Amino acid sequence: MSDYLPPLNDIRFAMREVAELCLGDGGLPALPGYEEATDDTVSAVLDEAGRFAAEILAPLNRSGDIEGCRLENGVVRTPDGFKEAYQQMAASGWTGMLAMPEHGGQGLPNQVAIAAFEMWSSANMAFGLIPLMVYSAIELLQQHGTAEQKEVYLSRLITGEWVSTMNLTEPQAGSDLSRLTTRAVKNGDHYRLTGQKIFITGGDHDWTGNIVHLVLARLPDAPPGTRGISLFLVPKYLVNADGGLGTRNDVRCLSLEHKLGINASPTCVMSYGEDGGAIGYLVGEENKGLAAMFTMMNMSRLAVGVQGVGIGERAYQQALAYARERIQGTRKTEDGAAAAAIIEHPDVKRMLLSMKSLCEAHRAVALYTALCIDLAKRHPDEAVRTRYDAHLGLLTPVVKAWITDGAVEVASIGIQVHGGTGFIEETGAAQHLRDARITTIYEGTNGIQAGDLVGRKIQGDGGRAINGLIEDMKAALESLDATGAAELVAVKAAQDSAFRDLQDATRCLLDRGPSDETAIVAHPYLTLLGNVIGGWLLLLAAVRTASDLSMPDADRTFLEGKILSARHFGQERLSMCAVLAERIRSGGDGTAAAVADHFSRA
Amino acid sequence: MSDYLPPLNDIRFAMREVAELCLGDGGLPALPGYEEATDDTVSAVLDEAGRFAAEILAPLNRSGDIEGCRLENGVVRTPDGFKEAYQQMAASGWTGMLAMPEHGGQGLPNQVAIAAFEMWSSANMAFGLIPLMVYSAIELLQQHGTAEQKEVYLSRLITGEWVSTMNLTEPQAGSDLSRLTTRAVKNGDHYRLTGQKIFITGGDHDWTGNIVHLVLARLPDAPPGTRGISLFLVPKYLVNADGGLGTRNDVRCLSLEHKLGINASPTCVMSYGEDGGAIGYLVGEENKGLAAMFTMMNMSRLAVGVQGVGIGERAYQQALAYARERIQGTRKTEDGAAAAAIIEHPDVKRMLLSMKSLCEAHRAVALYTALCIDLAKRHPDEAVRTRYDAHLGLLTPVVKAWITDGAVEVASIGIQVHGGTGFIEETGAAQHLRDARITTIYEGTNGIQAGDLVGRKIQGDGGRAINGLIEDMKAALESLDATGAAELVAVKAAQDSAFRDLQDATRCLLDRGPSDETAIVAHPYLTLLGNVIGGWLLLLAAVRTASDLSMPDADRTFLEGKILSARHFGQERLSMCAVLAERIRSGGDGTAAAVADHFSRA
Repeated sequence: MSDYLPPLNDIRFAMREVAELCLGDGGLPALPGYEEATDDTVSAVLDEAGRFAAEILAPLNRSGDIEGCRLENGVVRTPDGFKEAYQQMAASGWTGMLAMPEHGGQGLPNQVAIAAFEMWSSANMAFGLIPLMVYSAIELLQQHGTAEQKEVYLSRLITGEWVSTMNLTEPQAGSDLSRLTTRAVKNGDHYRLTGQKIFITGGDHDWTGNIVHLVLARLPDAPPGTRGISLFLVPKYLVNADGGLGTRNDVRCLSLEHKLGINASPTCVMSYGEDGGAIGYLVGEENKGLAAMFTMMNMSRLAVGVQGVGIGERAYQQALAYARERIQGTRKTEDGAAAAAIIEHPDVKRMLLSMKSLCEAHRAVALYTALCIDLAKRHPDEAVRTRYDAHLGLLTPVVKAWITDGAVEVASIGIQVHGGTGFIEETGAAQHLRDARITTIYEGTNGIQAGDLVGRKIQGDGGRAINGLIEDMKAALESLDATGAAELVAVKAAQDSAFRDLQDATRCLLDRGPSDETAIVAHPYLTLLGNVIGGWLLLLAAVRTASDLSMPDADRTFLEGKILSARHFGQERLSMCAVLAERIRSGGDGTAAAVADHFSRA
Repeated sequence: MSDYLPPLNDIRFAMREVAELCLGDGGLPALPGYEEATDDTVSAVLDEAGRFAAEILAPLNRSGDIEGCRLENGVVRTPDGFKEAYQQMAASGWTGMLAMPEHGGQGLPNQVAIAAFEMWSSANMAFGLIPLMVYSAIELLQQHGTAEQKEVYLSRLITGEWVSTMNLTEPQAGSDLSRLTTRAVKNGDHYRLTGQKIFITGGDHDWTGNIVHLVLARLPDAPPGTRGISLFLVPKYLVNADGGLGTRNDVRCLSLEHKLGINASPTCVMSYGEDGGAIGYLVGEENKGLAAMFTMMNMSRLAVGVQGVGIGERAYQQALAYARERIQGTRKTEDGAAAAAIIEHPDVKRMLLSMKSLCEAHRAVALYTALCIDLAKRHPDEAVRTRYDAHLGLLTPVVKAWITDGAVEVASIGIQVHGGTGFIEETGAAQHLRDARITTIYEGTNGIQAGDLVGRKIQGDGGRAINGLIEDMKAALESLDATGAAELVAVKAAQDSAFRDLQDATRCLLDRGPSDETAIVAHPYLTLLGNVIGGWLLLLAAVRTASDLSMPDADRTFLEGKILSARHFGQERLSMCAVLAERIRSGGDGTAAAVADHFSRA
């Protein structure tokens, strides 16, 4: 079960590809502040991250799933080894990998951090959730925290001494945060919070001495809806003036959820203020909490997409290992037939190619998006920063939703490759599906992402961002000489046609504007965009690969594998683009007019 | 959790549709032996089956999942209430519903039995597995049993006094039965069996006094491969001459599997002959066991497809109920906005339409296939019998694989509709996915089904059967006047185009003959065929519906719902046919040439 192999080859391949695409030969070190992120340094960091994944986290994946979490006398216990793994993570500086050096962080490029997080998610997705929350909280406090909050809380999140949580959801307020009712009342230099939060990842546990809760709540005189939400920092233990831990705050975990997957991650029902009100400190301005929280949510959404990359890769590796070992049926040989591993059967090959091509497309899209963050933050040219920031806005919902939709599919195929063995829990393949299944839901369901993409990012800005992205994609493809790659002619044609489909579909959404007919095809549009971007990156890789194949020291098998991925993706996903575009053009063919009673079985 | 509503409206609608299609106004009673299967009688039977599903089985679904099965001192215990439910099932005559009246059965039409089994599978899929085995064993013994076997064993399976199992799989012999090593040695009037079987559903439990194991094994002098397999009947308790139970046979359950789903169904590792050899009786001829077992497997494959219909419907109903209750966000009203149930949000509507249209297509395809059995067995005209028997051969892998692929998708969407709540086990939505996930695997993986369809049923008979089916489908559609249904113009065009795609793809498979390039697109071909048949039946229903809408007593909401299903299916599934056909034409675009090393991550 702990046979996870960090796919450093493919990760480095994808990182180099997108770095060259956006930064030419200079790569990441061309960006101010990333001068030290040379190939050698990055490789060393990734080797180390991969080792942590394979040696520390992967062996805890199955045991963590079996053991799960429990609430004992008001204290949450996580599975054996998890606490120690986090301490080791902190000791290696991984908790502060994304934090700014002025706060004591490592300031790694987002691309490198995302690659590391992919491997940890492969190794142990449930473990990675609390680190995910911490990275998001670090980003939030760096941007919105007071000097004191940075000194007291941010610094300890960076060192890994403390961890954090993100408290949005309430029973009546899930996707719709306007319904939030947790109250905060001002009381001197702090506030008193009262209310219940659900689905809180890591709401309580014993990993660290303190937990920093970031909580959305409403002031007594706040305007209704989302414009009346404020953000508070509520420590589990209050912090004394000397920085030491003081009294227990009025917050506790009421119960743990019994879930389909990520059983090693405690999902808590949290109660604030049962005993007079939990003490909280305002982060940012009153009634501007949602905007501040969005800093955190954008980060978390990307990270959830990366969990999708990771869990898909893990499922792929497990299915691949089984398919190479399991002997069933025969293959033709020159003198008859010989026993065959099932990987030799065409239908199994088809399934593995679907998994492989999706995983590689997922990875490339995630690493391209991560680079967009780095470019948007660091590039010396403001026009370039603005351009990549616009890309990032579009790509965030795609990474979150398109990749996680694919991850669930990959994990499910992984079970299928195993046959009956895949349905037996001991095998481990089923856990990947159970774990993956949450990724399409949390941090904003994929339907919410699709609505964000179409409503805000496409219709909301008149198509400027999407047209910029399409221009960049087409230009990059045209700059490459694909004439030498005869086997890619069909893929190239499919990609060109997919660009046209995307442009048509986009025009259609813009012409119609917000309406039920565009909202009902928002998710198909997101799938279309994901397919186009994924196909584009796989095709770029394959074209480059085709020319590399002639080099004397070429790793032919790896490179041929990249071409196979692009071809299979072309067949299976690019081919879908015309269908999706037609569906968008038709506005759902009148089905948006369905009313609740049409669905009845009475 | 027990709020399952038998969808009798839609079941009766689909049954009437296909009965009229194949039998005109006469319907089922036009078939010799089914004279009594009038609308009224059938409705009464289905009402009763639905009541059993909703009142007895559905309340045990969640408790059964939680409690699971356990092996105690060599005896398997199933969850509370399951044994009693089976006894009630037997007392109502449901165990013998498909058996011939001369053996004491009810001789219900397959169509009626399949409709009943759908409802039981919705209510409690795990419970239905042992009945499924029993129906298959009854079919097998009716066809291949000796007079004595019929008297002693068949009669008791029909009354429900005993149950049966199906023992094929061994650790090294799953999809590939040629590797089977369980041995049977002749010893007077019986045989002695030795070996281990795995994945045996209901291998042991306490529902009935005896269990009749049907076991594949190999004689000492048998030819190698699948031509050397014989079938044996191995009772758990030997039967005395007076019909009473004698000594315990040399067979036992070694352990139970810990599975992703169907936890209420005991999946056993079985050991035969640890103490000198289990006594078994030959069924059919020596070395002809696989052919006899195929009788049983065809039945089981259809039944597994029907489980897919059932679990999808259950997931749909649960998601629908949640979507109607859960308030999030707002909808526009004349004077602003009002709180909205999530069913009013277009993206949720899209998901529910996908579920609804798939479930109804599944049901129609299953009931059409069931009618094919009735026609193939009962129609007075031999040419008609032959024609429907050929349809049945094609449809069996489609029902098994296309429906179960769809069922997993439906169950997964069901979780998505619930958002975070869907991931919590208490909700019950997750159980449907866990349960559904086995249906694409057992009784022959869906890849095996696709290979059977393309290799044996299409390429193996030169396309005669598929051309006959396509002719029938086109003729039925042409005979209906669709001119009055303006909203179906696009669906009709999509269906016509899908027929052409199917014909092209079929020609392509036939021209190429068996090869890796056709095997790698076997599953896409199966999906194409399923989409065409499902779309055809939904469109037929919608066309008929469109004309019924003008009737004064029309149930407008139900009928409009049928039209919405056809339109959504057209958009989402028929639209895929061109893509699938192109993929088949390209023979996988060279990806069949992939070798194991191309997949490596090393």
